[in-house]
Amino acid sequence: VKIGIVGCGLIGGSIGLACRSSGHRVVGSDAQPAAESVAFERGCIDERGTLESVAQSELVFVCVPPVDLVSTCVQVCRVKPSATVVSDCASVKGPVVEWLDSAGEDRFVPGHPMAGHEKSGAKFASAWMFRGAKWILTPGDYTASSAIKLVESVVVEMGAIPVRGVASQHDREVAVLSHLPHALAAVLVKMGARLDSTEASAGSWRDLTRVGGVAPNLWTQILLANRHEVVRVLSEFQHELGQLLSALEQADEPAVREFFAQAQQAKEGKE
Amino acid sequence: VKIGIVGCGLIGGSIGLACRSSGHRVVGSDAQPAAESVAFERGCIDERGTLESVAQSELVFVCVPPVDLVSTCVQVCRVKPSATVVSDCASVKGPVVEWLDSAGEDRFVPGHPMAGHEKSGAKFASAWMFRGAKWILTPGDYTASSAIKLVESVVVEMGAIPVRGVASQHDREVAVLSHLPHALAAVLVKMGARLDSTEASAGSWRDLTRVGGVAPNLWTQILLANRHEVVRVLSEFQHELGQLLSALEQADEPAVREFFAQAQQAKEGKE
Repeated sequence: VKIGIVGCGLIGGSIGLACRSSGHRVVGSDAQPAAESVAFERGCIDERGTLESVAQSELVFVCVPPVDLVSTCVQVCRVKPSATVVSDCASVKGPVVEWLDSAGEDRFVPGHPMAGHEKSGAKFASAWMFRGAKWILTPGDYTASSAIKLVESVVVEMGAIPVRGVASQHDREVAVLSHLPHALAAVLVKMGARLDSTEASAGSWRDLTRVGGVAPNLWTQILLANRHEVVRVLSEFQHELGQLLSALEQADEPAVREFFAQAQQAKEGKE
Repeated sequence: VKIGIVGCGLIGGSIGLACRSSGHRVVGSDAQPAAESVAFERGCIDERGTLESVAQSELVFVCVPPVDLVSTCVQVCRVKPSATVVSDCASVKGPVVEWLDSAGEDRFVPGHPMAGHEKSGAKFASAWMFRGAKWILTPGDYTASSAIKLVESVVVEMGAIPVRGVASQHDREVAVLSHLPHALAAVLVKMGARLDSTEASAGSWRDLTRVGGVAPNLWTQILLANRHEVVRVLSEFQHELGQLLSALEQADEPAVREFFAQAQQAKEGKE
């Protein structure tokens, strides 16, 4: 299969590496020539192309930042052959699905690989990034099953596990599972930076702050794209953390214990 | 050196394994016979003893839950030979240092190994737990330097890095570096448990929730022992997260970007 990649950053670059290692030919394009060069030099893509030439591939992955997503998808769909299948990788599915529903484009399969890295750019791309990761696909009723099957087969070749989902539910869930954790980690690293020393840090600090320094532009776009869900989820988080705060202010031991007991139950229920 | 361990849980058990692998003889005691049995069966201790017999060792580590810490230290110091050195492993140093300052016990070295595990008990103990970890020691002016040196030498043998600290500063810092992350993780797992599916989770969720199910009794005691610092730190966290929430409610893109830009700077400053 000839694979096209529009947007050769961390995710686009990793898709390129993974697809090339499965024997596919990959052509890539990035609006930023420097990013495209990094992807080419790291072997993420076999050749560099324009958006128009990339759109001639059999399967095109659009991996651009959220703010450019819908306009890029529109452009790709305008110039692609009718048989070409397109998928995107945005972590918020609402905007692209809203456009798709109105456009009725039947060979576009919205997707979201559940993998990433705290650093950006093809410099950090890896052929292994998607191994064992879920890859959520949110096709509509109108999406051609052959298009879904093509995306699923390439996703499987990359080592990922395709999972069908519904866009609105997906966006609600990633607000909790991804967007909230990134916001919490960002606050944590800022508080840590104000300490004289972080020598008293251990594994919990390392883990909770790993994603605390992610790319500001990208994450601003992600949170704004999923703003309503994230606002709801942040409010819920504030409320629950406030309950712990009150319990501690009042030295209410049973309430503090209940806070942790509920968490332990929740954690064990998921294991 | 003959090592005594009072409290044979995760930390006491790991100290036993590490000290035995360095060739020391280890005698251990736990108020809960079942916990002591696990430690013995896993080879964390060479022999089981009473608190009194364990206190006859050259170096005694007190690794009991926070609520029992000071009373256990008092008991050990009452029955130990004068030459015996004692250290504790509590994550909050205020209470034990307050007692020590009044008792003037010169062969007691308060300590806190910066290592752990999300599961409790000697069942999860590891001889490697402390390798590469900082081990904070907060001796007083009155602490005998020979006592500090003995603790430091055994700590180094366990693969850890002894660091001198001041108890009050330590407690302020662990409120941010450890107690806050555990509280955040607990809220996260509770919110995750309410979702229909966590299939859209990836690395950030895995990392941020690793310590979300820690032992309720232990962590209730830890947070209450460091209550004033934790209340201050939780309030600060609520305030900063509230700023992000407001920025998102108003779709204030520059404010959201500034939130992440500050975090990225803070993270990079620490790397």
